[in-house]
Amino acid sequence: MSKERDRQPVRIALLGCGTVGGGVLRLLNENRSYLELRVGAPLEVAHVLVRDASKERVRECRAEWVTTDPEVVLGDDRVDVVVEVMGGEQPARRYVERAIRAGKGVVSANKLLIARHGAELIEQAIEHRVDLAFEASVGGGIPVIRTLRESLASDSVSSVHAILNGTCNYILTRMRDTGLAFDAALAEAQRLGYAEADPSLDVDGHDAAQKLVVVSMLAFDAHIDQEALLVEGIRAIDQTDFRFADRFGFTVKHLGIGHDRGDRLELRVHPALVRKASVLAHVDDVLNGVFVQGRALGPCLLVGRGAGDMPTAVSVVADIVDVARSRLEGEPGLSTRSIQLSRRELLPIEDIETRYYLRFDVADHPGVIGTIASVLGNEGISIEQMVQEGRAVDADEGVPVCLITHHTREGAVRRALQAVSTQRFLKAPPRLIRIEDV
Amino acid sequence: MSKERDRQPVRIALLGCGTVGGGVLRLLNENRSYLELRVGAPLEVAHVLVRDASKERVRECRAEWVTTDPEVVLGDDRVDVVVEVMGGEQPARRYVERAIRAGKGVVSANKLLIARHGAELIEQAIEHRVDLAFEASVGGGIPVIRTLRESLASDSVSSVHAILNGTCNYILTRMRDTGLAFDAALAEAQRLGYAEADPSLDVDGHDAAQKLVVVSMLAFDAHIDQEALLVEGIRAIDQTDFRFADRFGFTVKHLGIGHDRGDRLELRVHPALVRKASVLAHVDDVLNGVFVQGRALGPCLLVGRGAGDMPTAVSVVADIVDVARSRLEGEPGLSTRSIQLSRRELLPIEDIETRYYLRFDVADHPGVIGTIASVLGNEGISIEQMVQEGRAVDADEGVPVCLITHHTREGAVRRALQAVSTQRFLKAPPRLIRIEDV
Repeated sequence: MSKERDRQPVRIALLGCGTVGGGVLRLLNENRSYLELRVGAPLEVAHVLVRDASKERVRECRAEWVTTDPEVVLGDDRVDVVVEVMGGEQPARRYVERAIRAGKGVVSANKLLIARHGAELIEQAIEHRVDLAFEASVGGGIPVIRTLRESLASDSVSSVHAILNGTCNYILTRMRDTGLAFDAALAEAQRLGYAEADPSLDVDGHDAAQKLVVVSMLAFDAHIDQEALLVEGIRAIDQTDFRFADRFGFTVKHLGIGHDRGDRLELRVHPALVRKASVLAHVDDVLNGVFVQGRALGPCLLVGRGAGDMPTAVSVVADIVDVARSRLEGEPGLSTRSIQLSRRELLPIEDIETRYYLRFDVADHPGVIGTIASVLGNEGISIEQMVQEGRAVDADEGVPVCLITHHTREGAVRRALQAVSTQRFLKAPPRLIRIEDV
Repeated sequence: MSKERDRQPVRIALLGCGTVGGGVLRLLNENRSYLELRVGAPLEVAHVLVRDASKERVRECRAEWVTTDPEVVLGDDRVDVVVEVMGGEQPARRYVERAIRAGKGVVSANKLLIARHGAELIEQAIEHRVDLAFEASVGGGIPVIRTLRESLASDSVSSVHAILNGTCNYILTRMRDTGLAFDAALAEAQRLGYAEADPSLDVDGHDAAQKLVVVSMLAFDAHIDQEALLVEGIRAIDQTDFRFADRFGFTVKHLGIGHDRGDRLELRVHPALVRKASVLAHVDDVLNGVFVQGRALGPCLLVGRGAGDMPTAVSVVADIVDVARSRLEGEPGLSTRSIQLSRRELLPIEDIETRYYLRFDVADHPGVIGTIASVLGNEGISIEQMVQEGRAVDADEGVPVCLITHHTREGAVRRALQAVSTQRFLKAPPRLIRIEDV
């Protein structure tokens, strides 16, 4: 069993050389000898595909590697592992598919690509007996994928609650800790480089939704259509919500949530009230956190930087090591072959059951609370706590009435909100934040 | 590269079949087909070595596997992987060494064995080209070892702060949340099965010290003599400490701490004040948490159940998969060969630098605070905050004076405490709790 292997280097091609790609080159260089020990052979960079060859790169990127011609990279039979760190859907998808067809191992850090096409790409990888690794597509340097695949190999996941977007988490943390309004916290995040000029991908929940799809693929062996997910962002959260949340013992976090409900899967992305005593409530600022409940393992929380060039590069290199080892060991694709996805139907949002925080900005008239309570009662919704804040100075001014419900169906809650909406005392559309017991 | 491998099963022998061993058999059985996919061959149990064959075992433990004769197990050449879940130093050590010499892969869940003899066992494993995996020896189901070895393959760890003992964490959590005294909280932990009848291994810090040695082996590539560690338990912590800690913005956690200080390693195990805003401060009850600071990765926290049969069994099976794969792949021992430990000298405790919480139970006389402050000043210790609680009703009764210092050397603090100890106003020996910025 102890045959000596040839020490032929494993040849790597990078597609893209932005901040993550540059980080990968730095780490490969700095940890050369340790990585060779782990892989069992040297790792050698063969090509770095870029769009603009004149752009300055990290010192570790040798000029002779750089090319703008995808043919040079993808047509090179001696390349063993293709590392896609370019992002975006195309041409990344085309390049990755071609690499797979050519029998190369692939490492991708591209959440959009894996969320939209992961299932097909895994199928193609299995067909061509190559590995497709994508730890860096979710949670930056946090070993989410590895933990789900390897540590939990003998377990099954019953639920996932994850803070997957650092921008949302930063904004919500600042709103909670400093009393900033959403817009001001967003502007601050933009100044610090934590949010894009167009923040929609982050603050409207789409980035978190992509990551939840990737996490759920491995947590629930599920092939999920991202379009089917309930996705809500954090734009509507205001200081009144934080004040009431605090009073009820909660804080507000933006979560990606997955529950295995037997034949159905419950997946949703939205702001949620989380008990202040829970660990997840203290995963703050730009940190990400993935809380997994394993049937045998019990609770497991992984926290770290969800973005940033170096944390992401650390994950990419860990994947390169795995894919390179698996090629050398003469059994490439074994890891990927054990991913068996099946289409799982999602639970319709009306059928989910949780607790709810409801807020009604109402005219300060007698009888208002009674009306709200009876509308909820008619839908069978039981109220755990109800608070009206202060009194309006002027009778026409609205005052917030907030309540939290016991466990109930979302369908009933939606019907109740619909019914309250017709009431003339309402000064603004009613608001709903789901409560998660995590 | 895509040669078909023979599908010969990988044969496993269990040494020990207590709760963890039983959990392993259950998980191997329940996840048979998935594990076969991941390994690339079936996993087959060949033997289960027990001390008492008449004892009742889990349903999954077939009678024909059970033997009390170590020779039957260790002398069987067809066994590929030996899984040591018996615990204790001997005969576990002898059996593991024999298995290694016979060229078998070894999985061990034995923290005492790995903490005391890990370095030698790794050396033997490397010599005999076999793998030695021990994820389950630390942190139960938390993927600490895997993360350090695989995810951080291209990174280096600058520090570790870890809650490694669930018993201590439970007791401290209950003391903080309910105001229980140490003895009462310990009694409660014993009633709930979280603490042994003789709790010394846990509450005096020895269990955490063993685990810190194992974590540090992989975090710092260091071969450490456990005897050299500073180890303090939690028996001395009382409600006065919790009250002051809270007032200063901290909570009390029992931590294993490691810092890479260049040529030296700083390792210590003791109760510590941790900022209430830090995530680690909210890893409560019996949960364990390992907070790693990677130079490239940044902060990474892993939280989960640090003990318990099923979480630990999940880690054991993950290791079995790795060791089995590596045998099938014709390159057994590759993972273990990349562990390169070197003896690292420990920083003497006098030379560590941190912030300190100091408490003096003093007679309520004028001038006492002044005296304490000048003794500290003489040692160059700068005080950040100082609080005297209440006034004694009777002048002979002690009142606590608590302070926190700026960063200072432990040597200076110890000299200052020595000097204060000679003062007649002191009603009890002065107390010290280190403050950790984590």
